[in-house]
Amino acid sequence: MADFSHFNEHGRAKMVDISDKHESERKAIARSSVNMNKLVYANIVEQKNKKGDVLGVAQIAGIMGAKQTSSIIPMCHPIPISSVDLSFTWVELEAYDMYQLVIEAEVKTVGSTGVEMEALTAAATAALTVYDMCKAIDKGMTIGPTFLQEKSGGKNGDYHRETN
Amino acid sequence: MADFSHFNEHGRAKMVDISDKHESERKAIARSSVNMNKLVYANIVEQKNKKGDVLGVAQIAGIMGAKQTSSIIPMCHPIPISSVDLSFTWVELEAYDMYQLVIEAEVKTVGSTGVEMEALTAAATAALTVYDMCKAIDKGMTIGPTFLQEKSGGKNGDYHRETN
Amino acid sequence: MADFSHFNEHGRAKMVDISDKHESERKAIARSSVNMNKLVYANIVEQKNKKGDVLGVAQIAGIMGAKQTSSIIPMCHPIPISSVDLSFTWVELEAYDMYQLVIEAEVKTVGSTGVEMEALTAAATAALTVYDMCKAIDKGMTIGPTFLQEKSGGKNGDYHRETN
Amino acid sequence: MADFSHFNEHGRAKMVDISDKHESERKAIARSSVNMNKLVYANIVEQKNKKGDVLGVAQIAGIMGAKQTSSIIPMCHPIPISSVDLSFTWVELEAYDMYQLVIEAEVKTVGSTGVEMEALTAAATAALTVYDMCKAIDKGMTIGPTFLQEKSGGKNGDYHRETN
Amino acid sequence: MADFSHFNEHGRAKMVDISDKHESERKAIARSSVNMNKLVYANIVEQKNKKGDVLGVAQIAGIMGAKQTSSIIPMCHPIPISSVDLSFTWVELEAYDMYQLVIEAEVKTVGSTGVEMEALTAAATAALTVYDMCKAIDKGMTIGPTFLQEKSGGKNGDYHRETN
Amino acid sequence: MADFSHFNEHGRAKMVDISDKHESERKAIARSSVNMNKLVYANIVEQKNKKGDVLGVAQIAGIMGAKQTSSIIPMCHPIPISSVDLSFTWVELEAYDMYQLVIEAEVKTVGSTGVEMEALTAAATAALTVYDMCKAIDKGMTIGPTFLQEKSGGKNGDYHRETN
Repeated sequence: MADFSHFNEHGRAKMVDISDKHESERKAIARSSVNMNKLVYANIVEQKNKKGDVLGVAQIAGIMGAKQTSSIIPMCHPIPISSVDLSFTWVELEAYDMYQLVIEAEVKTVGSTGVEMEALTAAATAALTVYDMCKAIDKGMTIGPTFLQEKSGGKNGDYHRETN
Repeated sequence: MADFSHFNEHGRAKMVDISDKHESERKAIARSSVNMNKLVYANIVEQKNKKGDVLGVAQIAGIMGAKQTSSIIPMCHPIPISSVDLSFTWVELEAYDMYQLVIEAEVKTVGSTGVEMEALTAAATAALTVYDMCKAIDKGMTIGPTFLQEKSGGKNGDYHRETN
Repeated sequence: MADFSHFNEHGRAKMVDISDKHESERKAIARSSVNMNKLVYANIVEQKNKKGDVLGVAQIAGIMGAKQTSSIIPMCHPIPISSVDLSFTWVELEAYDMYQLVIEAEVKTVGSTGVEMEALTAAATAALTVYDMCKAIDKGMTIGPTFLQEKSGGKNGDYHRETN
Repeated sequence: MADFSHFNEHGRAKMVDISDKHESERKAIARSSVNMNKLVYANIVEQKNKKGDVLGVAQIAGIMGAKQTSSIIPMCHPIPISSVDLSFTWVELEAYDMYQLVIEAEVKTVGSTGVEMEALTAAATAALTVYDMCKAIDKGMTIGPTFLQEKSGGKNGDYHRETN
Repeated sequence: MADFSHFNEHGRAKMVDISDKHESERKAIARSSVNMNKLVYANIVEQKNKKGDVLGVAQIAGIMGAKQTSSIIPMCHPIPISSVDLSFTWVELEAYDMYQLVIEAEVKTVGSTGVEMEALTAAATAALTVYDMCKAIDKGMTIGPTFLQEKSGGKNGDYHRETN
Repeated sequence: MADFSHFNEHGRAKMVDISDKHESERKAIARSSVNMNKLVYANIVEQKNKKGDVLGVAQIAGIMGAKQTSSIIPMCHPIPISSVDLSFTWVELEAYDMYQLVIEAEVKTVGSTGVEMEALTAAATAALTVYDMCKAIDKGMTIGPTFLQEKSGGKNGDYHRETN
């Protein structure tokens, strides 16, 4: 059976030792989404044309969330993030009669460990922020699925999620 | 069209004024999930019988995440949380050949605003933590959907998600 | 000579005891500003018409800064902020050939101590954020003066800054 | 056998529910100490006569530490601390040929739960800070014992440590 | 027109990518000030002769503020600060009948991006702390101007503020 | 008399300049303990056999505490921690009729300064967490002594605490 690297010989959680790992440029891209009805969708799109907008707040929340990853996720290493960027795409899911805001977060570092968790935390935080700002209109929105789209750098090889 | 309470008269984001709102006991329950293959599932379940376990770490991450909500979600009010509890349930989704860990987070406060975001943040943080601790085995896990299951307290009435 | 309430009988700093103070609605308004040349000014104004804008980021930084006040200012009490709102005004100071962005932050609480520091921290944080986002264009910008414009609530009476 | 209130019915850690607890004034006093040799002692005392001093830094670290308690101790409730004060006393332990700096931290709140952990965290943080600032002189210093001296307020009655 | 590096191709804020930037020693010096009347000035100076003092607290607040920069300023990179030092100078501005406390903060790093924001945040935080500790005497104090005095290191060349 | 490196030429606290220090692998091991009566001891041991346990929560608190060191200890440098591991041992101190939980924390970094404070903070945080979770049973527990057991790496040589 595969081993959990996050547990010590006593079976207790530890922060994995990365002292011997090579510094290299690493990148990860994660995605989340917020699924909403037409009323919420129309409000966000309408608002977007004004100075302040829901996605603008979510964008910043995602960037700041990436920087807080190691204080939110217990076993994450504190690392010097060198880049965070989020982008938003609207998808109209006709099969589900649902408006889906797709959030993609890309994080880079030059360091000894990957930034998958930073990218996932950025995407999840941006999605939670959209929910927060729209929940007065409808509490029925759902967040996710949230997943890793790809990662590169590091000795364990790259990862690209298969399209399904 | 419905109004966003989170924007001021200049169209910019603000923290909604709750000075006039009544203090009352409020509760919210949110759910998230981590969807994984059999190998990850088997490792978590196997580990559970030892002293340290993945879900134990996720539990604490969720509780601490609830307390960090107002520093993660830009427009959230800092509030005195009076209770946080998480529980885990395994669901075997045969239709999808997938093992799903369902995470339910319940948060309470006696205060002037609801705790929906605290419950959602707790559930999302616990799910991200499970991903972090198992990603060495499989990076293909997905998180969510994450959603509000119910809330009570406050003048806007209760909310119970309809079963679908 | 007036007494510093922030020192104990040994002459060392302490957090002032507010256990006996009455809970009431309190409000404070602070102002800061960023003084810049025409190039920076034109870039900010031009950008404002697009989706993301410098002031939108500063707005959110100010709101989140208000929430971090008690972890930034050593002797500040942690308090449940009930409202934060910032607004921006442009002033063309002809006498100084300078473009001035005036930032006003209003903070409210229902609590046992005032929110002067929260309002000042919000305004100062927004100003620092404007500097950060424009410093690639010109590092010569100056921030401030930053000051308390008015406060109300609490037993010590209201304060309104005299016009000068 | 006594029950742990910090575990739910599944045996997992939770934040204890204090929704039903009465708000009242509560106080706790904790003590820690730093035990050092004569060289470190002489340096601290000598420095005290100048503008900046080791104990001045420790004092502020203790106050700020009290405010961070709920983000350091997983199951602690975030509470509105109304007062923090630390004091220092030197004890010359002849039996052990040791100079002992005794740190006493007093914390107050008007709230639904006690402040024992805030007082203990304040005292421990101040002690760690003294160690940090003097470790270039001697790494052999020891911290503690750290303990609760007394608490009052709340329905469970007062506690006063017996002299030993 | 000059480009903002802090916006992506969609016009939304991003954290600038510094993955390709060279690690080098970098330094920045920023200044802020607190302008006060004679009563406040006299109290601070009087207090300075005792063990605890206003400037001692401001000093520590500035150092800790520098370390919090990336969690306060949304687009700032988290970086390993290698040095922070603040100094205070009193200036008697006869033309304005005003006592001015000048605060200078110097921050160093060995890293891929400059520390201008860390120096500015340190100076601004120290100034806010002085305001906080003296506001019981006079709320009319003003903070700033706050500005970058000089920076060195990095490929964009050094910056030295012109005397005016 | 030995010099304090943590004070500048004005006698005020500063963060020591480590810009010129060499990056190398560094390790530190610290110990703390919680001293308790038989009732508390029996409860912890009994609980250990279930899914969640007191030591599991303390373990995670210690790891997260190590990551918070530079925001808790004023003069500590923020550093990229590469490993944190804690272990627990029970000692029955017959001479004192006391059950002692010994906590050992090992922290590593590849950086320009040591991790003594991170190891001490991890151990102290874990001990405080044990106290928190057991204080409903007995408030008479004591924490510590907390001390540095050993350190290695860096130009100042290794340190190994002498057995006493």
